[in-house]
Amino acid sequence: TQQLLSGRAPRTKPFRVTNADCSVKKGIMADTLHDLMNKASESLSVPCVGALVLGEDGTDVDTEEFFQTLPENTVLVLLEKGQQWSQHPDSLSRDQL
Amino acid sequence: TQQLLSGRAPRTKPFRVTNADCSVKKGIMADTLHDLMNKASESLSVPCVGALVLGEDGTDVDTEEFFQTLPENTVLVLLEKGQQWSQHPDSLSRDQL
Repeated sequence: TQQLLSGRAPRTKPFRVTNADCSVKKGIMADTLHDLMNKASESLSVPCVGALVLGEDGTDVDTEEFFQTLPENTVLVLLEKGQQWSQHPDSLSRDQL
Repeated sequence: TQQLLSGRAPRTKPFRVTNADCSVKKGIMADTLHDLMNKASESLSVPCVGALVLGEDGTDVDTEEFFQTLPENTVLVLLEKGQQWSQHPDSLSRDQL
């Protein structure tokens, strides 16, 4: 019950992860940030991961605690080492809807 | 129940904290202003913190009471000593959508 109330306990949830140029987007189930990083790295063929950021505004998701607050189907961008997040035209147009 | 009703008791919430030029934005969990200042200072490599202000309009968040009223995922800007807040073009364009 405690875990249900806090809503922050690790739980397997679906996420949508793209690469930096949004050419590939994968639906991935994960229960921890570490788990998602591993699966996304393999699924998107990004062997050298730099960061995982929110597609919405580029917020760096680098702690397990913050990761656990993300709702199901959050869109995340997996950046290779050295890559920078930039607002993708597609996500801008979605904001404008 | 008291805490749920008042909604102002310290509770760990997610925040999104950027540096002054918005080159880095981190998702950070914190329960108090003091806690967030410490974590953001370390995470964003800002050793000498001047102020923590709202990304929305530059309001200085300098009391624990006011901090506790902020909703989850509020965007905050961590300024180094001597830095001034200025509206970032990115947040402007998002506001205008």
